[in-house]
Amino acid sequence: MKKFTSVSDVKNLQEIIKKALQIKENPHSETEKGKGKTIGLVFLNSSLRTRLSSQIAAQNLGLNVLTLNAAQEAWNLEFADGAVMNGDTVEHIKDAIEVLNQYCDIIAVRCFAGMKSKEDDVNESILSQFEQHAKVPVISLESATRHPLQSLADCITITENWKEDRKPKVVLTWAPHIKPIAQAVGNSFAEWMQEMDVDFVIANPEGYDLDKKFTKDSKVIHNQDEALKDADFIYVKNWSSFDEYATMPEVKENWMLTGEKLKNTNKGKVMHCLPVRRNVELSDEVMDGENSIIYQQAKNRIFSAQAVFSEILNEINS
Amino acid sequence: MKKFTSVSDVKNLQEIIKKALQIKENPHSETEKGKGKTIGLVFLNSSLRTRLSSQIAAQNLGLNVLTLNAAQEAWNLEFADGAVMNGDTVEHIKDAIEVLNQYCDIIAVRCFAGMKSKEDDVNESILSQFEQHAKVPVISLESATRHPLQSLADCITITENWKEDRKPKVVLTWAPHIKPIAQAVGNSFAEWMQEMDVDFVIANPEGYDLDKKFTKDSKVIHNQDEALKDADFIYVKNWSSFDEYATMPEVKENWMLTGEKLKNTNKGKVMHCLPVRRNVELSDEVMDGENSIIYQQAKNRIFSAQAVFSEILNEINS
Amino acid sequence: MKKFTSVSDVKNLQEIIKKALQIKENPHSETEKGKGKTIGLVFLNSSLRTRLSSQIAAQNLGLNVLTLNAAQEAWNLEFADGAVMNGDTVEHIKDAIEVLNQYCDIIAVRCFAGMKSKEDDVNESILSQFEQHAKVPVISLESATRHPLQSLADCITITENWKEDRKPKVVLTWAPHIKPIAQAVGNSFAEWMQEMDVDFVIANPEGYDLDKKFTKDSKVIHNQDEALKDADFIYVKNWSSFDEYATMPEVKENWMLTGEKLKNTNKGKVMHCLPVRRNVELSDEVMDGENSIIYQQAKNRIFSAQAVFSEILNEINS
Repeated sequence: MKKFTSVSDVKNLQEIIKKALQIKENPHSETEKGKGKTIGLVFLNSSLRTRLSSQIAAQNLGLNVLTLNAAQEAWNLEFADGAVMNGDTVEHIKDAIEVLNQYCDIIAVRCFAGMKSKEDDVNESILSQFEQHAKVPVISLESATRHPLQSLADCITITENWKEDRKPKVVLTWAPHIKPIAQAVGNSFAEWMQEMDVDFVIANPEGYDLDKKFTKDSKVIHNQDEALKDADFIYVKNWSSFDEYATMPEVKENWMLTGEKLKNTNKGKVMHCLPVRRNVELSDEVMDGENSIIYQQAKNRIFSAQAVFSEILNEINS
Repeated sequence: MKKFTSVSDVKNLQEIIKKALQIKENPHSETEKGKGKTIGLVFLNSSLRTRLSSQIAAQNLGLNVLTLNAAQEAWNLEFADGAVMNGDTVEHIKDAIEVLNQYCDIIAVRCFAGMKSKEDDVNESILSQFEQHAKVPVISLESATRHPLQSLADCITITENWKEDRKPKVVLTWAPHIKPIAQAVGNSFAEWMQEMDVDFVIANPEGYDLDKKFTKDSKVIHNQDEALKDADFIYVKNWSSFDEYATMPEVKENWMLTGEKLKNTNKGKVMHCLPVRRNVELSDEVMDGENSIIYQQAKNRIFSAQAVFSEILNEINS
Repeated sequence: MKKFTSVSDVKNLQEIIKKALQIKENPHSETEKGKGKTIGLVFLNSSLRTRLSSQIAAQNLGLNVLTLNAAQEAWNLEFADGAVMNGDTVEHIKDAIEVLNQYCDIIAVRCFAGMKSKEDDVNESILSQFEQHAKVPVISLESATRHPLQSLADCITITENWKEDRKPKVVLTWAPHIKPIAQAVGNSFAEWMQEMDVDFVIANPEGYDLDKKFTKDSKVIHNQDEALKDADFIYVKNWSSFDEYATMPEVKENWMLTGEKLKNTNKGKVMHCLPVRRNVELSDEVMDGENSIIYQQAKNRIFSAQAVFSEILNEINS
C-alpha cells in the first residue's frame, strides 16, 4: 500500500480486515517492524480517537511518533498557491510538507472540510497538497470528504458482528445536529459498504442526499422508518446538505434514533463514529443499550490504523 | 492497588513510602513491568510537575504514555447525565471514558474543582464519573477535593527529612492568594498526615476552616504564630473558604510566611506543592532559603507516581 | 560540551560539522547513549522544525523526551526577580527551572525576543535565567538574540554544498516582512560565519544594521545588487531595526529575492531557516527553483541537534 486516503488504496478489503482481526488477537506481533522509522501525525483539527488509536498503533509497530498540533504548536498555514504572504499566514503548507518529508517516513494528516467553499472541500484543497507534495506515504486521518481509517474500523466491526450466512442489511441513517457538519464520514462509509458483501441503504431527509460521487448507485430512502425496517446494522451520523452546501434545510420529522425506532429493526446493532451528541443524534437509551457496538467500533480504530501502518511499512521496507 | 484517588486506596502507607524511596535509589529497576501496556494521562487542567513526573514515572516502568490535553486537543466535554447535547459540548465525558477504557490499561486524570458549585465539587462531579465508568484502574492527578500523588510525595519528603526519635510537629499553614483556590491540596495533606506518625496542626484564619470530612479531629488553630511555634515542618498553601464556598473572607493579619516567622519554629523545613506565588504566599527569602525542601518535594513527585503506577501494575499483572 | 547557547560553546567547529555529517550517514549509531536519561524540550514559543528535529535527534540517541508547551500546558510564568506575584503570573521561571533540574538531565528551551524592551532582549532576560538556575546542561532552541542549532545546521549545509578549493562567498541578505521580527537568526548566522572559512558579507538597508556585538568586523553593504554579485550562497532573512529597536524603517528598494536577482550571483545556492513568507521575502520561483537548498537545511536540523545532544551526553556520561 503506497498511501491510504480512500478505499481505492486497498487492494483486497477482505484481506486487510482479516489482517486487522489478527492484529487484534495479537497486537504485539510486529514490534520491530517500524524500528528506526518515524510517523508524523499532523492535526489541523481536534481529535480524540484518531489521535490516541494512531499513537497506540504506531507504538505497537515500534514506530517513532511525532505528533504536531499544527495551529497551536507551529505556525499559521497558508494554503493558496502563489499567495503573496503578507497577511496572517506564516508558513505555506507546501513548505511544511516538504519539511515533513525530511523528517518522517510516513505522514498522516487530519484536515477537515472548511465548510465555507464547496469547491475547496470537494477538491480536498488541503489533502491534495499532501498528496501532491509528500514524497513519503500519506495517510488520511480524516479529510474534507472521507474518513477511511474510520470506515475500515467500521468494516472490521461489522465483520466481527455478523456470523449468519445471508448478507446483513446495513442502514446509514442521517441524524439531527445543531450545526452544519461535513459529509466525510457518511461519504466514506458509503464507499466502503459498496465493497462489502452487504445490502446497503442510506436514509436521509430530502435535501440531504450525499454526493453521488460517493454513494453511486446505493439505494437512498427519504423515509427513516421504511429504511430501518429489518436492519441488521444502523450507522447513525449527521451531515449537512451537499446540494445547498453546508446548510441545514428544515427537517420536519424527528430523525433522532430512539429505542422505539430500533424495535422496527432486526435487533439491529447501532454504530456511530463518535463523538456523538446524546439525545440529539441518538437517545441515551440507544447509546447505553445492549444493541450499541459503538465502543467496540472505537476500539477497532487501533487495529484499523495498525493494519494500514503495517501495510505501508511493507511497502517502505520492500 | 486497584485505584488511587485518596489515601484510603493505600493499604500500608509506610510500605509504599519505603517502596518509593527504593525506587528513588534505583528508578530503572522495573523497566519491563509496564511493557506493552498503556497509561492515558488526561488533563482537563494545566499541569507542570504532575505532567512531567507522571511521564517520567511511566517511562521508567516501560509503560506507553498517551497524554491528552482534553479541551485543546479533543472535544468540549459534557458532564451532565441525561443532557440533551444541543449546546456547545460535543462529547459526553462517559463516552470519552468508555473510549479510554478501550485504549488504556490505566487512566489517570486531572480534574480541578470548578469553584462554582459547592455540591459539584464536594461530590467530585468529574472524578466520580471516571470512577463509575472506567473499567481499568483510575489514578487521580488531582481532583476537586484531593491531590493524593502530591500527598504521597509529601509523606516521602517528610520521611526523608526526619531522623529523630520523637514525632515531628507538622503545621499546614494557610497562605494569602489573590483569587479563590481549591482546597484539594490542603484536604489531602490533612488526610495523609492523619496516617503518619506526626503531631499535625492546621493553621488558618477564621472563615477558612477546611471541610471536617478531611480534617476530622486534627487540631485547627486560628493564630499563625501560635501554630508555628516549634514546628519541624511547615506546609504553606492557600485555599478559599469552604463554608462560604469559593469566597475569600477578609483576613486582617498577614499570613505570608516570612523568614521572621520561621525563627519561631524548630528550624522548620518549609514545604509547598508548587506553583507558588512568591512574596504573596511566602517570601523570596523563605523560598530560596536553606530551610526550603520544596524542590526536593517536587522531585519526589516522580517516585510517588512510580510507586503508585507500579502497585497498580502489580494488580493488573496478577 | 557543557551547554549550547552560542558558537562560543563549540570547541572545534569543523569537528562538530564532521560529526554531524557522520550522524547523517548513520543516525542510529548511538541509540544507547541517552538510555535512561531525559531531555526536557520547553517551548515558550511556536516551533515546527525545532520541535520535530529535536525530538527525532533525541529519539535517535535513546533519550526520553519531555515536551512542554509552557504557556498552554503549564502555568503563566513570572520573569521578574523579586516580583510580588499578585498579578496574572502563577509560577516564577526560576521555580520552573529548579523543578526541571529535578526531572531532566538536559534542558532545552525556546524563548524568543519579546520585541518590547531592547534591554530585556539584549540581556537575554529569559535564557539568562536558565543559564543561571539550571543545574544541568542548557541548550538554546532559539533565544532572543541567537539561534545556534539553526546556525550549526547552516554550517553543515554549506559544507555539504561546497567542493571547490577557494573560499565561497556567503551573503546574508535582509528581506522584507510585514511586521517586526527578531534579529536572532541573522545575529547567529553572522557569528558562525566568522568561524567558517568563507568570505562573508551582510546586505541590508540602511537603518537595519545588526548589533556590532554579533557582526563584529563583517563587511556590511547597503546595496543588495552589489552584495549579491558572484555570491555562492545567499541566506535570506528578515529582521527589524536594532538601532531603532523593533521598528521597521522605510525601505524604498524592493529587497525580495527574485530569480532576476539570482542571475547576478555565481549560481548561488539559496538558504532560509523557515518559516518563510513566499512572495514577500523571496519569490515562489526562487523557493521552488533548483538553486534552493532550503529543505536540505531543514533536514540538517536533525543532525545539528543530534551532534549537540551527543556532545552534551559525552559530558554527562564522563
